[in-house]
Amino acid sequence: MKLYGYWRSSATWRVRIGLGLKGLAANCEIVPVDLRSAGGGEQRSEAHGARNPMAQVPVLELDDGRLLTQSLAILAWLDAAHPSPPLWPADPWPRARAMEIAEIINAGVQPLQNLSLLQHIKALGGDPEGWSREVIGRGLAACEAKADPTGPFLVGEEPSVADICLVPQMHNARLFGLDLAAFPALLRAEAACAALPAFLDARPERQPDAPAPH
Amino acid sequence: MKLYGYWRSSATWRVRIGLGLKGLAANCEIVPVDLRSAGGGEQRSEAHGARNPMAQVPVLELDDGRLLTQSLAILAWLDAAHPSPPLWPADPWPRARAMEIAEIINAGVQPLQNLSLLQHIKALGGDPEGWSREVIGRGLAACEAKADPTGPFLVGEEPSVADICLVPQMHNARLFGLDLAAFPALLRAEAACAALPAFLDARPERQPDAPAPH
Repeated sequence: MKLYGYWRSSATWRVRIGLGLKGLAANCEIVPVDLRSAGGGEQRSEAHGARNPMAQVPVLELDDGRLLTQSLAILAWLDAAHPSPPLWPADPWPRARAMEIAEIINAGVQPLQNLSLLQHIKALGGDPEGWSREVIGRGLAACEAKADPTGPFLVGEEPSVADICLVPQMHNARLFGLDLAAFPALLRAEAACAALPAFLDARPERQPDAPAPH
Repeated sequence: MKLYGYWRSSATWRVRIGLGLKGLAANCEIVPVDLRSAGGGEQRSEAHGARNPMAQVPVLELDDGRLLTQSLAILAWLDAAHPSPPLWPADPWPRARAMEIAEIINAGVQPLQNLSLLQHIKALGGDPEGWSREVIGRGLAACEAKADPTGPFLVGEEPSVADICLVPQMHNARLFGLDLAAFPALLRAEAACAALPAFLDARPERQPDAPAPH
């Protein structure tokens, strides 16, 4: 397999975690797509447009050339093709709750603090950082309200798609200067994830296209 | 069950279609939440905030009081609790592709033409209609590229979560004045859906909170 992505893309990061939890990271070549390259980003190139007409990352390419986009669809595919360990809880209600938290982040937060929207708000003379803090703060408050009070993970005893979406979103929240002390359940789940190699190895600064530390 | 929603909300519309396909519409009370009420919308009321901290619709309330938000999580719950007919294809690859198209709309389009963002762009002196046309056009082009070329539905022989997300998005595209002639596979799937009572009964103008026709 090949994963077309970008070290700092939170949606790519989710897929890296999923590959790691499934023990598939070594079977998947990471192909960087530079969202910050000159000319508006490599994701808008003809080559990448042929992979993803949305001009976004991540894209998973299977060994037979089939292409799949959208991080949650890719995670669902990995889960169906490689069932153990599951990325979704087995029982219907925890499964729906994990999906709910994942979608709060995937559809309710991340698209609204995506680079192209922030560039649009900035071009209009708005305050993209303030907008992002508001959007992320509201989304994380909803996740906190939905999380299991006891944990250790957001929904139950094992990491799920909810935690996979949470970890990159918490990182983004800190980049925008949010105070996360109001979200103890989220901090607890994030800490439980940070103890797992799959989550550690997926971190942006560990990716081949990340800049060297200074 | 109760479905808290709004007649024109495309995410609520998706859940109405799912309830109809499952034969559950008669078991579900529709509770209108007026997104256009004075004071910024009933979704921001304390009562609705207790149901959904994201201050959005839809919210499904089960008979025992459990609450679930996010349209795709609600559809996944309905599918798990009432498996027939399935809303997701059974085989892993069509299943992933249906999820991909659903997420292109759910995460890649709908959040970027949501009322609160359009109000923000308008307040900054921008062009919310132009922005929306661009976002919807790009998303529908991606769906067209991903759809089955033969149909009748977007992925295979039965309506799936992909079609459930498509139909309200096509309606929104027309509201914004988009020319849909470039999307023959989407028009074909939309027409196949329009022949089904579950899709017809879920249309916004048939909802109790829709204004009387003039």
